[in-house]
Amino acid sequence: MTGSTGTHPPAISAEQAAREEALVRQVVASFGDTPSPRLRELLQALTRHLHAFVRETRLSTEEWAAGIEFLTRCGHITDDRRQEFILLSDVLGVSMQNIAVNNEAYRDATEATVVGPFFVEGSPEIPIGGDAAGGAAGEPCWVAGTVRDTGGEPVAGARIEVWEADENGFYDVQYADDRTAARAHLHTDEQGRYAFWAVTPTPYPIPDDGPVGDLLAATGRSPMRASHLHFMVSADGLHTLVTHIFVRGCEYLGRDSVFGVKESLIRDFQRQPAGTPAPDGRPVEGTWTTVRFDIVLAPADRTGIDRGPDR
Amino acid sequence: MTGSTGTHPPAISAEQAAREEALVRQVVASFGDTPSPRLRELLQALTRHLHAFVRETRLSTEEWAAGIEFLTRCGHITDDRRQEFILLSDVLGVSMQNIAVNNEAYRDATEATVVGPFFVEGSPEIPIGGDAAGGAAGEPCWVAGTVRDTGGEPVAGARIEVWEADENGFYDVQYADDRTAARAHLHTDEQGRYAFWAVTPTPYPIPDDGPVGDLLAATGRSPMRASHLHFMVSADGLHTLVTHIFVRGCEYLGRDSVFGVKESLIRDFQRQPAGTPAPDGRPVEGTWTTVRFDIVLAPADRTGIDRGPDR
Repeated sequence: MTGSTGTHPPAISAEQAAREEALVRQVVASFGDTPSPRLRELLQALTRHLHAFVRETRLSTEEWAAGIEFLTRCGHITDDRRQEFILLSDVLGVSMQNIAVNNEAYRDATEATVVGPFFVEGSPEIPIGGDAAGGAAGEPCWVAGTVRDTGGEPVAGARIEVWEADENGFYDVQYADDRTAARAHLHTDEQGRYAFWAVTPTPYPIPDDGPVGDLLAATGRSPMRASHLHFMVSADGLHTLVTHIFVRGCEYLGRDSVFGVKESLIRDFQRQPAGTPAPDGRPVEGTWTTVRFDIVLAPADRTGIDRGPDR
Repeated sequence: MTGSTGTHPPAISAEQAAREEALVRQVVASFGDTPSPRLRELLQALTRHLHAFVRETRLSTEEWAAGIEFLTRCGHITDDRRQEFILLSDVLGVSMQNIAVNNEAYRDATEATVVGPFFVEGSPEIPIGGDAAGGAAGEPCWVAGTVRDTGGEPVAGARIEVWEADENGFYDVQYADDRTAARAHLHTDEQGRYAFWAVTPTPYPIPDDGPVGDLLAATGRSPMRASHLHFMVSADGLHTLVTHIFVRGCEYLGRDSVFGVKESLIRDFQRQPAGTPAPDGRPVEGTWTTVRFDIVLAPADRTGIDRGPDR
């Protein structure tokens, strides 16, 4: 296998190639009687891609065994509070690719990004202009914008869920004291407008004390996530959007550990000098930031509408 | 995604394709500074193939989550005695493909097949003609043959390890009583000859009470392995061969759950009527079988010798 460096399988004999290809066909055929057509499709595709990986890389027996051992370690560290397989999917960009294929580009609809493990049902409701920070440590941040559809119409009563880490890099659920903070939901007004107080997002690492952390270390990658604020926006008849906004200037924008950053989602968080009056007249000590995020939701059946006539 | 049935990605817009391809490039680039060139190659190839799988199948979010849950179940059932990830690799044919790429076709060298989880170091040594069965339940089977190199020369003193399940479908290590049975090693004589008593192989299922068993059930596949006898044959300067011989006529030959069967490894186990004298004069009650297996070992550096001049 000396000299193999990448994307193409090394030269192998015709007899050898025939043996390897026959095996692929045999495994694909073994799934031919799967009652569910979709399960059949998925397993046959998985078989083809896994075998292509083994054949292209001429995976050694020791490397195969190392892969088994890695998956075993992921399994053993995973419990109700820690999901190493999701982390693995995240750092390989598979989670983000899954988001991409399920949120196809549609006119000017806002791009989606990863959900992450920290969304929780049942967040407190706040009024427009209310406080989503809920006592979380951090610099105050005034977030405001609108929700529209791709026809430009304001969406009244859209539900906006927001959540984020505090300035120490932890979400509320990562603390042992059952706090709820930096997590809330609100609804847009008749003109599709919303606004709330949050904290200015700061970077934090994904859990890196397990096998996925070892993988990042072995490959010279950072476990840091670029600073971000999570949104989930839903309204009747429109495609639910799960996304983030990112802080322009954050040093991790170009190397977010889970590949969540999209250029279209980077926003200016404008820092205001201490003493600058807040938009809602609220007294603020020290500096604060303000950011605008105008959201465009695709129709719920966007895929059919978008692609039907052209296919 | 309606109408997607298989090997080709459904039509997507140019913008959508650009987004998906940019993500693949971004993840591949993230491994660009990996100090080990081989680890870099493996992770970049893995990234390309995993993303191709997600893109081609337009994997839904629910399907992605089902995959995470499946891997989690595999991790949680795996312990010192049970290795579900190896089983998964086996039933997807990945283990066998790994064997194939590490045992390339070379002249008339005997084909390799999967090692399986039941090889144990330190088996008892027996003389030529000795008893490898060691009290295992089953019909006696006289196994004889030669070991040669690909130049046709007999290999004297080759070490032959043999192991197999008993007629109940269990290897010795699957019993709780610490028995050693149906497991031994011997050496060829000056003419490269060997012979020993074993038991006639019978089919048995791989462990199917976990997620891999559920996968087989959902796809209408059998957990059974075709009847076989394991060999590991090693000698100085020659490539160690790990293989099986299979019983011609076994009903599972065409649907071995781990894809280990090669036509070249199927042998006639000839059944002898009760009372037929044994080759070594040993008294045998009832029927017994006899099988011949002539083994050809490739040179240890076969890949270079074989492929060097042609590359």
